[in-house]
Amino acid sequence: MERIIATYLIETPFDPQAAAAVLAGEQSSGTFVAVPGETAELKERFAARVESVENLETVTTPAIPGATSPNGQYHRALVKVSWSIENFGYNLPVLVSTLQGNLYEIKQFTGLKLLDIQFPESYGTHFKGPEFGIEGCRKLTAVLDRPLIGTIIKPSIGLSPEQTASMVQTLANAGIDFVKDDELLSASANSSFEARLAAVMHVINEHADKTGKKIMYAFNLSGELDEMQSRYDAILKAGGTAAMISLNSVGLAATQKIISKGGLAIHGHRNGWGMLNRHPLLGIDFKAYQKIWRLIGVDQLHVNGIDNKFWESDDSVVQSIEACLAPLFDQALPMPVVSSGQWGGQAMETYRRTKTTDLLYMAGGGIMAHPMGPAAGVRAIQQAWQAAVDGWTIEQAANFFPEFGAAVTKFGNKK
Amino acid sequence: MERIIATYLIETPFDPQAAAAVLAGEQSSGTFVAVPGETAELKERFAARVESVENLETVTTPAIPGATSPNGQYHRALVKVSWSIENFGYNLPVLVSTLQGNLYEIKQFTGLKLLDIQFPESYGTHFKGPEFGIEGCRKLTAVLDRPLIGTIIKPSIGLSPEQTASMVQTLANAGIDFVKDDELLSASANSSFEARLAAVMHVINEHADKTGKKIMYAFNLSGELDEMQSRYDAILKAGGTAAMISLNSVGLAATQKIISKGGLAIHGHRNGWGMLNRHPLLGIDFKAYQKIWRLIGVDQLHVNGIDNKFWESDDSVVQSIEACLAPLFDQALPMPVVSSGQWGGQAMETYRRTKTTDLLYMAGGGIMAHPMGPAAGVRAIQQAWQAAVDGWTIEQAANFFPEFGAAVTKFGNKK
Repeated sequence: MERIIATYLIETPFDPQAAAAVLAGEQSSGTFVAVPGETAELKERFAARVESVENLETVTTPAIPGATSPNGQYHRALVKVSWSIENFGYNLPVLVSTLQGNLYEIKQFTGLKLLDIQFPESYGTHFKGPEFGIEGCRKLTAVLDRPLIGTIIKPSIGLSPEQTASMVQTLANAGIDFVKDDELLSASANSSFEARLAAVMHVINEHADKTGKKIMYAFNLSGELDEMQSRYDAILKAGGTAAMISLNSVGLAATQKIISKGGLAIHGHRNGWGMLNRHPLLGIDFKAYQKIWRLIGVDQLHVNGIDNKFWESDDSVVQSIEACLAPLFDQALPMPVVSSGQWGGQAMETYRRTKTTDLLYMAGGGIMAHPMGPAAGVRAIQQAWQAAVDGWTIEQAANFFPEFGAAVTKFGNKK
Repeated sequence: MERIIATYLIETPFDPQAAAAVLAGEQSSGTFVAVPGETAELKERFAARVESVENLETVTTPAIPGATSPNGQYHRALVKVSWSIENFGYNLPVLVSTLQGNLYEIKQFTGLKLLDIQFPESYGTHFKGPEFGIEGCRKLTAVLDRPLIGTIIKPSIGLSPEQTASMVQTLANAGIDFVKDDELLSASANSSFEARLAAVMHVINEHADKTGKKIMYAFNLSGELDEMQSRYDAILKAGGTAAMISLNSVGLAATQKIISKGGLAIHGHRNGWGMLNRHPLLGIDFKAYQKIWRLIGVDQLHVNGIDNKFWESDDSVVQSIEACLAPLFDQALPMPVVSSGQWGGQAMETYRRTKTTDLLYMAGGGIMAHPMGPAAGVRAIQQAWQAAVDGWTIEQAANFFPEFGAAVTKFGNKK
C-alpha cells in the first residue's frame, strides 16, 4: 500500500527516536493510555511509522517552549514518518491535519518543522497540478525567452478604478508583461471589484487589440467563496487571464474549489508565510508548503527575492525557487514569483544562483519610481536580465544600458 | 468611519514607534520608495494608523531572526494599529491578509504576535456569529446544568463503521453527551464517511427514541468543498446535529461557506494551532484567533485543557476559555472544548479558575480506559464536576464517589 512520507526537523530533550514515536502515535492511533480496539492488525494497517531518525547537533537552549531537559541538553534530528494512503486517501485537509496538526503541541518537542513531503505515485494521477504553470503563463503573455516582468499596483490601496486603469495603461505602454492587485485590496470603498475589473480589462483588451500582447492582470479574488466564484467568472468573461488568491487567508479547501473551475492562471500569494516559517525550528519549510499548493493547481507561487526588503536570506529564496522548479510527477511547474524590493539590480545574482529565467520578476517602486519613468523602469529590468544571462556584472550593464544605469544610480545604493 | 484595531506584541532593535510605522506602511500604502499617486488624501483615507505604542521590557537576545541591533538591545512593546473599514469591508480573508499578512516578514521585527482584534459595531450586524453556541448545544443535548461530557472515538483511525457504532452504543449506554471523530479520520479505507454516518446515526437515533436523549456526534467534515457540502446535507438528513471542521486545514473561506448552510452545530478543531502560537513572540494569540472563527459562526472551539498532555500552560488554557466566554457583540457564545489528557481530575482546577460549567469537557482514554468500564468513566467525570462546583477537593470526591475514586487511582498519579 502506498505511503506518504513526511520529513521533520525536530528538537527534543529526550531520545529523538522516542520523541518521534510519540509523534507517530499522536498522529495515528494515540491517546494517553491504551484503549480497547487498538489491535495489532489495526496498528499494522493504520499506525504512522517512524522510517528513520538521523541525529544532528545537541544544543543547550531549547528553541521553543516545551519539556525541560534534565541534563540541559536538547537533541536535534531529522525524522521521517510515514502514513498509509489508506488513512486519508486524497483528502488534503485531513492530510494537513495529519502531517501538520496536533503534533506541534507535543511537549516532547522543543522544536518541530515540517521540511518535506513525499507523495506516492497515485497522487500524480489524482491531482492534475497547475493548468498553466510556467509554459502556460509564457504562452498567455507571449514572453518566451526571459522572465516575465511584472508589477504590483501601488499605492496598495486607495486608487480608484480609473486611476488603476490609467496606471495599467502607463505600464502597458511601458511594455509590462504582468500586473497585479496588492493583496490588501480586493474591493475597497472607492474601488469595487467589478468597476476595477471593467476599467482594467478595457485598457488591457484595447492594448491587446493594438499590439497583439495581452498583459496578464491578477485580480485579487480573495474573499468569500460565492463572491470568489462569481468574480472568477467575471474575469473570464471580461477576457482576463489570471486571478490572485492569498493562499493562507483563503485556505486550502476554498482555493482548491476555485482552481477547479479552470480557465484562469492562479497567482498564489503566500502572505502570512512568516508566521508559518520565520522561526527556524517551528512551522513548515517552503519545500513542503509549495507541494500542497502545486497539487491543487496553483500556477504562480511567491518566493520572495534576492536582497529583499524582508528578513529572509538569499539562500532561503534560492531554495524556494529550486523547490518550485523541481518536478512533481509530470505536472506543469509553477512559476516562481520573485518580489520584494526588486528593481533589476538583483537579476545578476538571481540568475547566477538559479540559472533560470523561468520566473515572474516583480518590481513595484523599481518600475513606477524609475527616474526616467515607468517605461524606462521596465526596460531597465529587461536589460538587467539580458545582462544577467550574458554573465555581465551590474557595473558592465549599468555602463552599457542607460535605463539600467539610471536605476542603479537611484536604487543601487540603498544598502 | 469605523476602524478595525489590531494589538500586536512586537520586539525590535529599533525604536518601537518607528517599527510600528513600518508595519502600518507595509500593510496599507507601502512600497520601498514613494510612488506617484500616494497623495495626502489617499493616505488620510486608507493608510493604517499607529494608535498607540506602549513600551515594555528590553532584552538582549532577539526572539526570532531579523535585523541585528547595533547596541545589542531589542525592545518589546504593545502596539495598536488601525485600518479603516473602507479598506476591506467585511471581506475576512483580506482582513486576515491585512492584519496577519506580510507584516510577519518585516525584518525590523525580531518578534511579532497578533494579540487581539477589535471589530467595529457594524461587524456585529453583518456577521451573525454561532447559530447554536453554548445555549444551542445545551438544548440539542438536553444538558442544562453541567458541562457536556464528550469523548473522541479512539483509536483515532482504523475502526470500521460497525466498530465505531458499537463504541457509540457503549458510550450511549454509559450516558455520554457528545462524541466525535478524531481529526485524523474523515474517510479511511475501512471507514467510509457514508457508512460510518449511517451506522453511528442508527445507534444515536435508536438511543434517542428509547431515552429521549440525542447524543451529539461531530462527524469530521474536513475535506474538499463539494464533499463537505454533500456530507453536511447527509448528516442533517440522517438526523445528526453536528459536524467537525479542522479550521486551519480547511481554511477560512470554505469553513465560512459550509457554516452558512445552517442546521448543524460546528465543532471547530484547531489542530495545527501550535504552529501559529507556540512561540511566545510569533504568530497569533488565541484571543484574536477565536474572534475570527466566531464571526463566521463556529459553535464549539478547542481550548486544550488544564494539566493537559501538550506543552500549553494552564494560564494559557484559562485565558482561552475566558476569551470564548467574553461577549462578541450580541452573538451567541461559542462553547469552549476542553480536551487533551482529561479524565475528570482536572474538573476541580478548571472550575476553580474559570467558575463556569459552560464547557464541552472531552475525555478519550479517561472514559474508555476507566477500570470499571466506560459507563463508570462518564459517571466519574459527572461526579468530578459536581464535586468541583460544590468546592470539594479531589480527595474528598475520590473518597465519596467510587467511580471517580477508581479514576483517581488509575489516572491520578500520571505526573
